[in-house]
Amino acid sequence: MTDHPRPQMSPADHAELALTLEVASTPKPGNVDRHRDHGDLRFEHFLAGAVGSRPGLELAAGDAPLGDAFERSVRGMSRQSGGNTQFGCLLLLVPLVRAAATDRLSPDGLRTVTAATTVDDAAAFYRAFEHVDVAVDDPPDEALDLDVRRGADAVPALRDRGLTLADVMAMSADRDGNAAEWTDGFERVFDAADRVLDDDGPVTDRLARAFLDLLAERPDTLVAIDHGMDRARAVSREADAVRGDLDAAEALADRFLDEGINPGTTADLTAATAFVALERGVPV
Amino acid sequence: MTDHPRPQMSPADHAELALTLEVASTPKPGNVDRHRDHGDLRFEHFLAGAVGSRPGLELAAGDAPLGDAFERSVRGMSRQSGGNTQFGCLLLLVPLVRAAATDRLSPDGLRTVTAATTVDDAAAFYRAFEHVDVAVDDPPDEALDLDVRRGADAVPALRDRGLTLADVMAMSADRDGNAAEWTDGFERVFDAADRVLDDDGPVTDRLARAFLDLLAERPDTLVAIDHGMDRARAVSREADAVRGDLDAAEALADRFLDEGINPGTTADLTAATAFVALERGVPV
Repeated sequence: MTDHPRPQMSPADHAELALTLEVASTPKPGNVDRHRDHGDLRFEHFLAGAVGSRPGLELAAGDAPLGDAFERSVRGMSRQSGGNTQFGCLLLLVPLVRAAATDRLSPDGLRTVTAATTVDDAAAFYRAFEHVDVAVDDPPDEALDLDVRRGADAVPALRDRGLTLADVMAMSADRDGNAAEWTDGFERVFDAADRVLDDDGPVTDRLARAFLDLLAERPDTLVAIDHGMDRARAVSREADAVRGDLDAAEALADRFLDEGINPGTTADLTAATAFVALERGVPV
Repeated sequence: MTDHPRPQMSPADHAELALTLEVASTPKPGNVDRHRDHGDLRFEHFLAGAVGSRPGLELAAGDAPLGDAFERSVRGMSRQSGGNTQFGCLLLLVPLVRAAATDRLSPDGLRTVTAATTVDDAAAFYRAFEHVDVAVDDPPDEALDLDVRRGADAVPALRDRGLTLADVMAMSADRDGNAAEWTDGFERVFDAADRVLDDDGPVTDRLARAFLDLLAERPDTLVAIDHGMDRARAVSREADAVRGDLDAAEALADRFLDEGINPGTTADLTAATAFVALERGVPV
């Protein structure tokens, strides 16, 4: 009905939309979604977090240092009363936005983007922890001075050791599913996005199925931090049992909520998957 | 936990967040909300509409002509497959954003903003109808050449008559609740925002109650276009019967959905109410 070309969405638009589509997708057992609040952490906090993160996402689409873009996005995200809504999502989205904005949205492109990070980027990453409480595991004994919970206080240790943000991610890749993506060209995210593009139906249903696939494939590292690796493996087996079946996943979502099981890292991966799928043309 | 000041949200941020909070608020009988899609018009289309409208909302916060800001916001909003999600919301938000960005967010301020509109703004408003199908009433016989469904083809008639956007709104104020706000300093929106600020609980519950109040107070003009004024009055009586009681409103929401009753103008007013409440500090 119009001769005017519709404006394309930018990478920052897609990242912001990905944050809202992730939380709108339901059921995602154990996570806040459009049908489930978690006590004082409610759906609308994620909407406000998405809007608030936008200035940082725009920095990521420009030529600001990647760490500054991340720190700014977290600072804006935290401007709501729910607490940490999307720290992990943003840790994935910021390099993905940079890659998309520079025509490198591929595993190799992401490896290039992360390899280019600096010690200053690592320092900004640490500063971002001062804006919200983030659930993290204890660092190994040889890296106590690099505990992210120290925030900016850990920056001198970072500089002494000359660690870039990519180095910091590599140090926790075995305990943090988001850090693992950083060190592995975001392979799981790209694979999941391919499945979303091959799937059909509303994008929020596709993303809910992608969440179940991701959770079934590998234990969620936030569940492992909260409840131990044995429980995290059991949660993945439960996800595997309802894979592809959103009706069956509804009951699991109710039970995980009751039991305090929160596969939040898998939700982060789902937001990143939404971004790549949007960039590659999944219909909304 | 932080010494950094949290960045304030801008009027464009608040407008975008208001669009998402409106559709997240539930139940809003007869409208899409986080618990109810309407066939092929789904929740995620509103999320994409909100993100897409942002460049236009930023124009509204700057010094672009108001009509251009509106037309740009509608063009971006239409970049999803659900159709018209937020045309009416944007018609209210664009002057509200302009007022907020220039420290005039009051009924008098809105009267000043709307009084300053031009014939060019009216022409841009007409062009905006080329981006989406909007449900409108037939124009009066003396204004057939100004039927908005003519889009840009009506612009010569606008110029012949020297009609500003405020003039165009005044012509349909008796048949369109959004146009009525334009001619009346947005008094209903400001009153509703005061009630939202005085209310308590999650902002989405406050907005759902505000929707019921607005619908109870005055017949919805979209329902009147679709089903006649008698039915619109009956719908308002039904809203009045469940006012303040979101549990009772759930059943009404299911029934209105079945019956094809869509009080969309009242949803537009609710989005505008969310914006004013956010600007005035309602907690999220």
